[in-house]
Order: sequence, then C-alpha cells, then structure tokens
Amino acid sequence: MCPSDSPPERHDPGHEQAVSLLAPADNPVLVEVTRGTMVESRHRGAFAVCDTEGRVLLSAGDVERTIYPRSAIKPLQALALVETGAAESFAVSDAEVALACASHDGEPLHAEAAQHWLQRIGLSVADLECGAHWPYHEPSLRTLAAHGGTPTAAHNNCSGKHSGFLSLAQHLRAPTAGYIRFEHPVQQSVLGILEMMTGLDLRDAPRGIDGCGIPQYGMPLGNLALAFARFAEPNDQPERRQAACARIRRSMAEHPVMVAGHERFCTKVIAATQGRALVKTGAEGVFAAAVPELGLGVAVKIDDGQKRASEVVMAGLLNRLGLLDEGARQVLAPLLEPPLVNRRGETVGVIRLAPEAIT
Amino acid sequence: MCPSDSPPERHDPGHEQAVSLLAPADNPVLVEVTRGTMVESRHRGAFAVCDTEGRVLLSAGDVERTIYPRSAIKPLQALALVETGAAESFAVSDAEVALACASHDGEPLHAEAAQHWLQRIGLSVADLECGAHWPYHEPSLRTLAAHGGTPTAAHNNCSGKHSGFLSLAQHLRAPTAGYIRFEHPVQQSVLGILEMMTGLDLRDAPRGIDGCGIPQYGMPLGNLALAFARFAEPNDQPERRQAACARIRRSMAEHPVMVAGHERFCTKVIAATQGRALVKTGAEGVFAAAVPELGLGVAVKIDDGQKRASEVVMAGLLNRLGLLDEGARQVLAPLLEPPLVNRRGETVGVIRLAPEAIT
Repeated sequence: MCPSDSPPERHDPGHEQAVSLLAPADNPVLVEVTRGTMVESRHRGAFAVCDTEGRVLLSAGDVERTIYPRSAIKPLQALALVETGAAESFAVSDAEVALACASHDGEPLHAEAAQHWLQRIGLSVADLECGAHWPYHEPSLRTLAAHGGTPTAAHNNCSGKHSGFLSLAQHLRAPTAGYIRFEHPVQQSVLGILEMMTGLDLRDAPRGIDGCGIPQYGMPLGNLALAFARFAEPNDQPERRQAACARIRRSMAEHPVMVAGHERFCTKVIAATQGRALVKTGAEGVFAAAVPELGLGVAVKIDDGQKRASEVVMAGLLNRLGLLDEGARQVLAPLLEPPLVNRRGETVGVIRLAPEAIT
Repeated sequence: MCPSDSPPERHDPGHEQAVSLLAPADNPVLVEVTRGTMVESRHRGAFAVCDTEGRVLLSAGDVERTIYPRSAIKPLQALALVETGAAESFAVSDAEVALACASHDGEPLHAEAAQHWLQRIGLSVADLECGAHWPYHEPSLRTLAAHGGTPTAAHNNCSGKHSGFLSLAQHLRAPTAGYIRFEHPVQQSVLGILEMMTGLDLRDAPRGIDGCGIPQYGMPLGNLALAFARFAEPNDQPERRQAACARIRRSMAEHPVMVAGHERFCTKVIAATQGRALVKTGAEGVFAAAVPELGLGVAVKIDDGQKRASEVVMAGLLNRLGLLDEGARQVLAPLLEPPLVNRRGETVGVIRLAPEAIT
C-alpha cells in the first residue's frame, strides 16, 4: 500500500505514521542464493518505488513496516549542511558534499579528504565522535597495517557525514562536543528536514542509536521511498531545499568514488548510470535511491539485514525502471546477478532475484 | 517431522531422501535483532534435535528441507582419516585430528600446525587444493600484512581438513593431485561414510562445490541431526567407526582452539562445556552439534545464511538441553544474547531468540 494516498501535509505530518511493533506479516522471498543444483539460502524483504505524491508504482511486501533507514538516509541528512549555508560559508567542495553522503571504504582518499575538511574548519579528527574502525577496503586495511598504522575516526565510513555535522555545528555557533546527541541543534536541524522529506512526525517514532552514535528514527519503508522521490524532485519543498537537493544530487553524480569506494556497488552504479540513479546503501539490508529523471524514490529493506540481497534487489529495480542502457548493463552484470566464487576462483553459484520478485 | 520414523537401514538408505526444489514452506522467525526501541532485522530458519533412532525430540520449521551441511560436516568427513588407519599410520595427533574438523581462524598456531602435518607426510602447502585466503582472525591478518606476508593455503580455514584428505590419499596410495574431486578415492570414501551416518543415498542428491573445492551433498536438515546423533553415540555403526567417532570427539573436546580459534563460538562453547557439546559451524547459517551424554544430534539452518543467527539458536538449544551449568552460562552469556556494540563502544541493541523460537 501507499505510504500516503494523498500528498502529505508538510506541517502536519503525523497522520502518515504507522508504527507496528507486532510480529510482522511475511514478506516474500526476493533473492535466492544458489550453489550447484539447488537454492541454498533465501532472503525475504520489501521494496517500494514511489513518486513525489506518495503513490507506490512498484512494490513487494509490507511497505508500511517500520524500518531504520540507517546510512541510506545520509544524502537527506546532508541537506542540513547545504541548505543552512554551512557548506557555503566553509567553502565545502562538491567532493566533500559527496563524502558527507558517503558510507565510504576508508581508502586513503576518503580519510585524507575528511582530515583536510576538518583542518579547514579549525578542527581535527579528535573532534569526530563516530569512533574508529579499520578500513572496509581490505587492501587499504593491509597497507595501513603494513606501515604500522592504526585506524582513526577519519577511516570510519561515516567520517564525511560527521565532518558535515561539525561544519554545521560551527556554522550554528553551537558547541561541537556532543553534536551526535538527539537534543543538539545539529541533530534537531536534521530531524526537522527528515520530517518534511518523509512526511512523518518523528518525535515519537521508534528510536535507536546508529553505528556511529547518531540518532536513528524508525519509519515506514514507503516513507523512505517518498523522501527519496522528493530528493529527486523537491518541487513541494522550500526553495533553499530545492537548491540543496540539486547540489547534493550533482555532487553524488560527479564524485561517485567519494560516496563509497572503488570496489563498491554505490560507486559503480552511480558511475555506470552517469548519475541517473543516485543510490545509497545502509546497514541491515537497507537501500535507497533517487531517480531524478523520473521523479521517483526507491527504498529496499531485506528482513534479515544482508547487503548481498539488498544490492541485487536495487540493481534489479534500476534495470526494471529502464535506467540501465546497454553499456551500463554490461558494466553492472556482476551486480545484477553476482556469481559466487570460491577460494579456488571457481564459480559455484549465483545470487539472483527470486522468480517474480520484481514484476 | 522426523527424518526417519523408523531406524534407517544402513545399506538401503534411499528411502529417507526427500529432496524438494520447489519454493519452500515458511520457516518461523527464530532470531530477532533489536536496535533501540524496536526489532530491526529478523532471521527465519529451522532446527532439529534427534536421537540415534531418528526421533525428533525438539524442532522448529521444516526439518525435511534439503540443505547443504557445509563445514558443519567436517567432524564426519574426518571419520575417513581415522577409521581407515591413515591417522594412525601417519601418527596424526589429537590436535591435528581437531584441526581436520576445523573451520579455523588462520591464527599462526593453525597455519603452522597444518604446515608441520604436511611436512611429516612428505608433502607441502603447495599440495593443498583449497586455495588461499587472508586469516579470518583480524589481528593475525594485520600481523601477517605488517610483516609483508601474504596468505597461503595453510591459512585457509579448511587447511586441516585438506591435510587430512592428503594423508588419506597417501594412505590409500592414490594420487594426491585431484583429491578434491568427486570421483577421487578420498571423496568416495567420505561419501560412503556420510551415507551411512545420514542414512541417505547421496549419489543422486543435489550437489554443489564448497568454498574449498570439495563436493557438497544436499540433505534434509533432520538427517544432519541424525548423523550427529550417531557421531555422539555410534552403537549401530561398525566397530572401527565407533572407535573413530570416540577419537574425534575426544580430539575436539581436548583441543577446542584447534577447531576454530581463540575468539570463536565453537571454541568457546566446547571449552566452556568441557566437551559436553561438540559444536561445529558451517557457512550459510548451518550449525551442527553432538551431545554424547544424551546421545543426541543437533542441526540448525538459518534460511538467509547468517552466522549471527545460527550461533544464537545453537546457544539457546544447548541451554534448553541443560548442557550449560552456571559457570558455562556466565562465560557464554555474550553468545546466548550477543549485544550489538557500535563504533563508539556503546551497546545499541541485542541479537536474541524470538519469542517461542525454542519451546
């Protein structure tokens, strides 16, 4: 069903909220993992493709089930950085805006970009409150280890988003310490934007803490798709936000490597579609996308939280929406139906859409 | 349902086989992953606890659905090494027998043990056909990288199993090259043992290639539980096999670190229960266990293939079977209900059994 059959009211958004903590209805099997002659594993989930009026054009499963959008929401969190004027006052580049939208791999170019950005605003890696972790990108991890290094918060996949939050805190003349807390002006600014984009009153929504320490708000999957439709075509939003959406879309399209990394799905898809599909992954099997030329938003959630399934569903949906030309389909073939390759380099199975997962 | 309502015939095992390639019935949600105030992800699956007669004493979901046992089957594959006399003729130690049952972490002690074993039988790492991969154990990976090293096949989590296969090939005076192939005497020897232990005719079973290149046979989940019940209490098996089962059980119980690694579930559970529960993990959400004192076998398969869920189900089943005394329950508390800890070190959720998953 549709997350909002009528266009949502921007200033009275509460009517769209549909939180259920009860045991959910069964979502369909969307992805199968084969090995040899049989299906070995299966992934259930739901997806919604919405327009800016909240009409669901394509869906599977329960699109009203409440999910945490996790890092898929980063392009919308970045709106606060841009529309407040913080990005302009600190001369934040398009590459840095893309990094603010990123769950990056911790390659040297990502960590260095975050460090330079922080330095320019008079801060340092010590001000990041996201915690440190080894780079996701294994060659970068090994190079770091080989040089006797240890990871810093700049290697954290969220360091760009947090650099954006710190820039916003400085711009708002708010304390930088504690910028990750729910009640801090930075997070309140983000919350207001998310409410307008999703059409939801999120003050009493289910709430959790993300991997990097910031608040996460539970929302129906369909409303995440709606928010990305508005990000793609924000005609019903204030003018400053329309401009901010355009800048963030352009930044992601022009700097796909900053959004994820050389070996990553998001980077490959944005590059291969030349920005026609602006995709953003999130933890626990979430994926979102904005399709500016169609004015559509896409949201995917795999029940069990596995990325290998959310990626195949997202690739299949982009293909179904006609966004992959012949060249893109060739480049993205390993993402549309990823082979399972064993330690000997043999292809032993495949990850594929279940029959009729996308109709 | 029971994988075999009557005791299976060892020499006419075909009647137990129940292969279905059709879309399966829904398995129940066994595990929930919470974050803040709501459940974020859910894992469906099935489990069976069987006695040596094939009676299912405890189960959830479809125990007749065909699964690949993956690495959970290693202790049974190791039977070929021991019962043929290969282990004796090459003076294979208990620690090496435990390593043959292992999906190990590639810590230095694992890789070195495999190297020494191969050297003793006149072979080397170059004879392993499992392929190489970086150690699963991250500190070992980083140490290896820091010293400019690269992983060899000895670091492969299956290097102990493959060292056992090579010992068996030598003992059988079969060519060592190609010991991973279905038709090689080593794999045929293993196949015959698996048929007797599972009570299945596996010649026409669904077949795939494992991560390390050896054949995998599809079997109903309940038959994996039955095979582990027989491994726990092999009274209906030939004498040499009874002795081999006893030796392998003892080796796993006395060398838990060799079965997995210092930071791993299998090692912690075997150590904390002092071998009362001999647990073995497999890829794609499979887990098996033998409980000698109760003459029971346990098999778990998570539909979506995630280890975090199969571990919580296995821990819950061992608790339910009364195998965890107060001391073990304290040591294993982080495995019974693992906290989700974010990059800042904050506990932000929990992985837990779903209500009524195990009744």
